[in-house]
Amino acid sequence: MKDKIQTFKTYIKEKKYLLATIEVLQWELETLAPKQGQEYLSEVLAYVSMKDYELSTSEAFQTLVSELLEKKSSFDLLLQKELEEVAEEIEKMKKIPADEYRDYAELCAKNQGVWEEAKQKNDFSLVEGNLTKIFDYNRKFANYLRKEEKTLYDVLLRDYEKGMTCEKLDVFFASLKAEIVPLLHNIQKTKKKHFSFLTAPVPKETQKQFCCFLAEYLGFDFERGILAESEHPFTLNINKKDVRITTKYIEHLPFSSIFSTIHETGHALYEQQIGEELLSSLLGSGGSMGLHESQSRFWENVIGRSLTFWKELYPQLQKKFPSLEHISLEEFYEAINQVEASFIRTEADELTYCLHIMLRYELEKSLIEGNLSVKELPKAWKEKMREYLGVEVSNNQEGVLQDVHWFAGLIGYFPSYALGNVYASQLFHSMKQDLDLTEYSQETIRKIRLWFGENIHQYGKCKTTTELIREITGEDLNPSYYIQYLKEKYEALYF
Amino acid sequence: MKDKIQTFKTYIKEKKYLLATIEVLQWELETLAPKQGQEYLSEVLAYVSMKDYELSTSEAFQTLVSELLEKKSSFDLLLQKELEEVAEEIEKMKKIPADEYRDYAELCAKNQGVWEEAKQKNDFSLVEGNLTKIFDYNRKFANYLRKEEKTLYDVLLRDYEKGMTCEKLDVFFASLKAEIVPLLHNIQKTKKKHFSFLTAPVPKETQKQFCCFLAEYLGFDFERGILAESEHPFTLNINKKDVRITTKYIEHLPFSSIFSTIHETGHALYEQQIGEELLSSLLGSGGSMGLHESQSRFWENVIGRSLTFWKELYPQLQKKFPSLEHISLEEFYEAINQVEASFIRTEADELTYCLHIMLRYELEKSLIEGNLSVKELPKAWKEKMREYLGVEVSNNQEGVLQDVHWFAGLIGYFPSYALGNVYASQLFHSMKQDLDLTEYSQETIRKIRLWFGENIHQYGKCKTTTELIREITGEDLNPSYYIQYLKEKYEALYF
Repeated sequence: MKDKIQTFKTYIKEKKYLLATIEVLQWELETLAPKQGQEYLSEVLAYVSMKDYELSTSEAFQTLVSELLEKKSSFDLLLQKELEEVAEEIEKMKKIPADEYRDYAELCAKNQGVWEEAKQKNDFSLVEGNLTKIFDYNRKFANYLRKEEKTLYDVLLRDYEKGMTCEKLDVFFASLKAEIVPLLHNIQKTKKKHFSFLTAPVPKETQKQFCCFLAEYLGFDFERGILAESEHPFTLNINKKDVRITTKYIEHLPFSSIFSTIHETGHALYEQQIGEELLSSLLGSGGSMGLHESQSRFWENVIGRSLTFWKELYPQLQKKFPSLEHISLEEFYEAINQVEASFIRTEADELTYCLHIMLRYELEKSLIEGNLSVKELPKAWKEKMREYLGVEVSNNQEGVLQDVHWFAGLIGYFPSYALGNVYASQLFHSMKQDLDLTEYSQETIRKIRLWFGENIHQYGKCKTTTELIREITGEDLNPSYYIQYLKEKYEALYF
Repeated sequence: MKDKIQTFKTYIKEKKYLLATIEVLQWELETLAPKQGQEYLSEVLAYVSMKDYELSTSEAFQTLVSELLEKKSSFDLLLQKELEEVAEEIEKMKKIPADEYRDYAELCAKNQGVWEEAKQKNDFSLVEGNLTKIFDYNRKFANYLRKEEKTLYDVLLRDYEKGMTCEKLDVFFASLKAEIVPLLHNIQKTKKKHFSFLTAPVPKETQKQFCCFLAEYLGFDFERGILAESEHPFTLNINKKDVRITTKYIEHLPFSSIFSTIHETGHALYEQQIGEELLSSLLGSGGSMGLHESQSRFWENVIGRSLTFWKELYPQLQKKFPSLEHISLEEFYEAINQVEASFIRTEADELTYCLHIMLRYELEKSLIEGNLSVKELPKAWKEKMREYLGVEVSNNQEGVLQDVHWFAGLIGYFPSYALGNVYASQLFHSMKQDLDLTEYSQETIRKIRLWFGENIHQYGKCKTTTELIREITGEDLNPSYYIQYLKEKYEALYF
């Protein structure tokens, strides 16, 4: 048995090498690879991914894993969890016929280019056929993988948020609809203020310096990470010693890079604070999508868009950004929290963001359940935008074609973005019982970071989100903290 | 046979994927990887290198190659050359016992850290043992690999400069010693001028902008390449569509980045102008070390340090670098060609550079031939520095420990640096017969680039350096053009 465990560990080591290579290639493609070099690097990436697939599906490995699983209870907890993690992946690979999976992966990869063209030309019909196929595949795969789940959509949720169900999500979105949609409509009746400093240009170099300072201020360790530029900000990690974040510097939207840096730093702190003992394990990375998003949203919104946080930092920001010279802290705070229903999810403010997600959740659920066809999707999108956000979508470019997710095969992914907010507020409520949060001094920031490290980050993938939330907050997912947080904040700001 | 060729091509494809991955990882390690993330990326790199080694040494592949080699003459030229390339690698792997090769590779990898420490502590004794072993291994391997070569050192040269021999190098270095050493000693007797603008600080950002402009001006295609920063400037390529160069921006040495950018652009143009038909072949990359260096040295010195080149560009440089405002073009030209014998090869001027190489060549040859022991090396170094360059080396840090090459196992590598200069001058002589080079307008620059593309670059590894030099110049390696070039240039500058 000892030899078998050793062999298993060697497999894991190799798997981790392959995964690290995939991450590096992805990083290169998203950040620095020259335009004409991208095609070949994508090919290399596909090759390495195939090697990883071959490793996990090899007879030898699968036999080894099932032999070890039989003796599972006699191993230490870490090994048990790692075996479960691998077994889950193997099971999934076994249940979906290899050729179908390959066809689907190819379809998704190829479709990104089709989607780009469709978006650029504002022509949904170009991508309608492929999108129909993608939803068909997802329905089919969900049927293959279904266990106890009540709905097919629940099966898809498993990939991003284990234990999450439509039942739970419906409760959450119902309260959003009941409480936040009316609040938004009331805010929309108030007179809109114009803050010209929000669009006063700031040189990239200045933004960059401030973003670096900010990331470090929040605790990002530059010995174990980098901050770079990319078209769409993201976080990626090789392991806890190599965590990479990006932002985008737009001269005439200087606060965009600031808030995206805070957001990505939230993801990065999670990865950098993973337990040292998980370094060479498959579990040495952050938990569910939603939990990860709770960290980025917490730092970006709960901290980064609070008055308390900027009390400390605003004078330093003013020094760097001359357009803020005569702007009071209070006015700055109002500006960075201005509510404005827009077409685009990624540009949405804190209040309307979840409504964008609600719309996507309802649509993809209906599509999977067969209550909506892909053909009807653009129209349904427009109707919901009108109902929830009160805006008229005039073209699909700014409508159903805006996000790549569905077109890349990510169905069931969107709810995680909303869950991040819900977890963040619920965790914030518990944190307040442990820490004095009246001032966000650098010392308080450090304590918050360590609080997350101790309660969440150190565990990596060893505990599920459900377990962690229960342990920390003493209850299950409870959206009321989030609804309450939004209402308190925005009622104070607007009324 | 058709099937076998197809299988061979699949192997090559896979090999190229692995090599591309190695390049990407190397790039990351040298440029952006965070400090604490480097160890793991090095491990991943070792893993991928091992995969490449396994591929090339697999029974199946070796059998396939020898079967194909038998029918070689019936294949197209490209396939023939590719087979020869692979066969050579296999032969080498076969002749050196795998365990010895592995031990040696490990020794070299490990020794880099030892060398760093020895250099930092200025203590040669720390690394003496390992260096002795490295030279022993090289002697042993040269014996295994020896074919027709007259000396063991000739065998080592093969790795970097196929067809080069001590016989040819001795002739070259003898004329250097006879003509350039006395010229240097005469220059050293003249009164040294001080050009304060050489060390007047220029912001990194400004340097960066000018270097980008310069690379593009020389023809570097940014759609197929990037310019980044690293501790030591270098060029690396995935293929002709992804060629990467680096420089280092030092505020108070603003011309360092400029000349290193021109140098690396020279390497990059070679790679970017490789024939399109070689893209998916193993031959789709530059030729011998020396020929590659001829391109970088040509652009850096023959073009970049000429008066004609700066006639066009100097006004633009002056605009960016205010310290040059009152400096005439002629004075600038004098400054960037100032001769000053220094301890450090990488900082040497055009005239003394080859003397640094001569010293290393003589020492490593003596070591391989057994006429010098590693123990005696520091003393021998100092003596030769005094004799050739007229400087007194007071410590090993600035002496024998300065370059990593020997300590990383690169024996026989140094001559390529000097050969680069020799080839460059010889090619320049031929180029003058084809092109009007009285002015280096952007049009002339373009013609020079295309001349190299047509005569050298397009062939990749399909022709040897010896073949190319003979075809283009109508003669074999002839150092007299280089000696003459140096004498003309520096006599005009100094006397």
